[in-house]
Amino acid sequence: MKSFKQMTKEELQEVKAELEKQYKEAADMGLKLDMSRGKPSGKQLDLTMDMLDVLNSSSDLTSENGLDIRNYGVLDGIPEAKKIMADILEVSPDNVIVCGNASLNIMYTLISNAYTFGVLGNEPWRNQGTIKFLCPAPGYDRHFAITELFGFELITIPMTSEGPDMDLVEKYVNNDPQVKGIWTVPKYSNPQGITYSDDVVKRFAALKPAAKDFRIFWDNAYIIHDLYEDDKDELLNIFDECKKTGNENLVYEFCSTSKVTFAGAGISAVAASDENIASIKKIMGIQTIGFDKVTQMMHARYFKDINGVKAHMKKHADLLRPKFEAVLKTFEDELGELEIASWTNPKGGYFISFESMSGCAKEIVAKCKEAGVTLTGAGATFPYKKDPADTNIRIAPSYPTEEEMAQAAKLFVLCVKLVSVNKLLEQA
Amino acid sequence: MKSFKQMTKEELQEVKAELEKQYKEAADMGLKLDMSRGKPSGKQLDLTMDMLDVLNSSSDLTSENGLDIRNYGVLDGIPEAKKIMADILEVSPDNVIVCGNASLNIMYTLISNAYTFGVLGNEPWRNQGTIKFLCPAPGYDRHFAITELFGFELITIPMTSEGPDMDLVEKYVNNDPQVKGIWTVPKYSNPQGITYSDDVVKRFAALKPAAKDFRIFWDNAYIIHDLYEDDKDELLNIFDECKKTGNENLVYEFCSTSKVTFAGAGISAVAASDENIASIKKIMGIQTIGFDKVTQMMHARYFKDINGVKAHMKKHADLLRPKFEAVLKTFEDELGELEIASWTNPKGGYFISFESMSGCAKEIVAKCKEAGVTLTGAGATFPYKKDPADTNIRIAPSYPTEEEMAQAAKLFVLCVKLVSVNKLLEQA
Repeated sequence: MKSFKQMTKEELQEVKAELEKQYKEAADMGLKLDMSRGKPSGKQLDLTMDMLDVLNSSSDLTSENGLDIRNYGVLDGIPEAKKIMADILEVSPDNVIVCGNASLNIMYTLISNAYTFGVLGNEPWRNQGTIKFLCPAPGYDRHFAITELFGFELITIPMTSEGPDMDLVEKYVNNDPQVKGIWTVPKYSNPQGITYSDDVVKRFAALKPAAKDFRIFWDNAYIIHDLYEDDKDELLNIFDECKKTGNENLVYEFCSTSKVTFAGAGISAVAASDENIASIKKIMGIQTIGFDKVTQMMHARYFKDINGVKAHMKKHADLLRPKFEAVLKTFEDELGELEIASWTNPKGGYFISFESMSGCAKEIVAKCKEAGVTLTGAGATFPYKKDPADTNIRIAPSYPTEEEMAQAAKLFVLCVKLVSVNKLLEQA
Repeated sequence: MKSFKQMTKEELQEVKAELEKQYKEAADMGLKLDMSRGKPSGKQLDLTMDMLDVLNSSSDLTSENGLDIRNYGVLDGIPEAKKIMADILEVSPDNVIVCGNASLNIMYTLISNAYTFGVLGNEPWRNQGTIKFLCPAPGYDRHFAITELFGFELITIPMTSEGPDMDLVEKYVNNDPQVKGIWTVPKYSNPQGITYSDDVVKRFAALKPAAKDFRIFWDNAYIIHDLYEDDKDELLNIFDECKKTGNENLVYEFCSTSKVTFAGAGISAVAASDENIASIKKIMGIQTIGFDKVTQMMHARYFKDINGVKAHMKKHADLLRPKFEAVLKTFEDELGELEIASWTNPKGGYFISFESMSGCAKEIVAKCKEAGVTLTGAGATFPYKKDPADTNIRIAPSYPTEEEMAQAAKLFVLCVKLVSVNKLLEQA
């Protein structure tokens, strides 16, 4: 198909008429599909069902260190679970605390602790005036929502193909003591699927923050979520790099099994330096009695070790890959030559990031919704849910079936074309 | 045996010599017993082992409302779990949020929310100067620790046999706007096993707080933890009473299955008014993705309904009752006539509260520890861990076996006698 940008007004109007006809037909199909969140599909969840057979009434529920895991006790996780989460993150189990099902809740807690009690003996953030937080965008809406709740000033950092714009990050972090943190998803970032380059990771580790209590929130949510066994992105270990720069206190790292086992019922972990871990545990001992060790044991015995986890992830990849490829093929086939959009080709993670023409994203999402396909709200990937150019749309291909995915992708490209044609006609 | 108080100095010295001999023998036995926390015993935990058979790889993990509980979704709990927790608390499921394994963490979160964001639109506590919190004592050390962490001023409210001294509670709450909350364990209180009388509950519901953002933390941890089927304490439903006084926003109520199923791996719940629940959920939606619904479903299908829970609690009572009775019999037999101590006779809960002579508790606990029996630290049941009279010791009979319990109780009364004799000789 000819590029929309090369078309005359008359050609565009012709295309528009045809697209409107197609849209009406599509809307009449009564689709009802949800691509709004990065939810695993039913088939993916089925992969883990046999984890429920691991523990039963005859199980010995004693952990390696002799603890009856059914009872109270142990704040930082049973050794079996600590080992697996530490191996996922490639850190020492001593630097890991295994928590409940939602890693987001640990992130919230660490922000809340910093706000109320301060970081490692520093003045609490609440007493330090306006706190600024860097938000590489497009990024993860739930990250931004936490820091927005606390009333921090959210500063958008543009993403490059190698990660956040580090010139800007360094400028803010190294000069402004009000900048206290940055959100990151360093591997297969949400929503672009970008993995931070070695240079970006090294520059993070080499930051010289103006604030003593600055922290990098390194949300490694997709650390083992590769789509292609023979073509994985490689991310440098941030703690290895921080050791070299003497900056080990700079980072809180997070991961979970939410997209490994059951999305709502996995285990999560935070990794940090010795000093940070000691400080987190001190407050955690007052915040809770401890996390669910039966669920931890179920996970540990199911996987046995990191190899078990990795083998499991290949099965997820086998289910996810065709969906990603189907969406990307539809985009390529239908939009490839039109010059009205671009998109990422991630090798892992849960999302494809789509860029429409300026000022079109909101309307594309609205058009899709009208015809029965729910997408993540346009703007959601930016601080305050405001995408300044109104171009970014997060595509989450994991949840629908392959057939539904094909229908949804077709509707989506149709809406993209229709909204873009309208925009071009406006401008003509 | 003759009352110590009636003895001459010479008689006391004679007793002392004999007790010291006995203590040396006991210490040589090399006991290693832990009665420091209210932990269920292994046998109690065994009662729930078949809960692990309820879910397996063939289970349908769809909840009543059609939700795939393995996936993301639902903040306030699956309907099956909400129903059971609501029935335990005798409130509507609409007024319940089912949370993770530790109810303490919900309490912490609500304190933290009030501090940071304020209660129902009121100014955050952090901006209101010195916050005061009422702490009926002896009470639960982990409650007090939360409010101490936030730097609140903890005000000790003496306990009576009917509950907290309500004259004092009313005086503080109804007059001082800095008083923002009170900790309570209204049934089988920790550590005294006191159940608040109807009059006390009604006076709580009729409070007219000077602070609009005052809240009662109604920790109903032992609501179904009766020892005697035919001799249960009855506690009025606080929400029923608050309806009558138009004070429904005044109370946050908590419970958990920590001492019903697995201590470290149960489910918990908070109950509150419509307005409070809506406000809690609003922030909770940013704090977490949701709680572990697989564990919720495991509990719900295991118990089926409130009757299943109650039947289960009878089995716990059968294991706990002999231990309580053995301790109380030892106290009665060995200390009954000595006029050096008193203790409570609870009909439920997890503790017996022991009162030594003034200034003796710390030393009794130290003496026990020296001979291999760890008790809750003396003072722990008071704000700032400071028992002004140094008399209160919390006895937790649940964890040791019956045989260990007998040994521990014997050593304990021996230490009580020895320390009391020394005190009387000092005073003689």
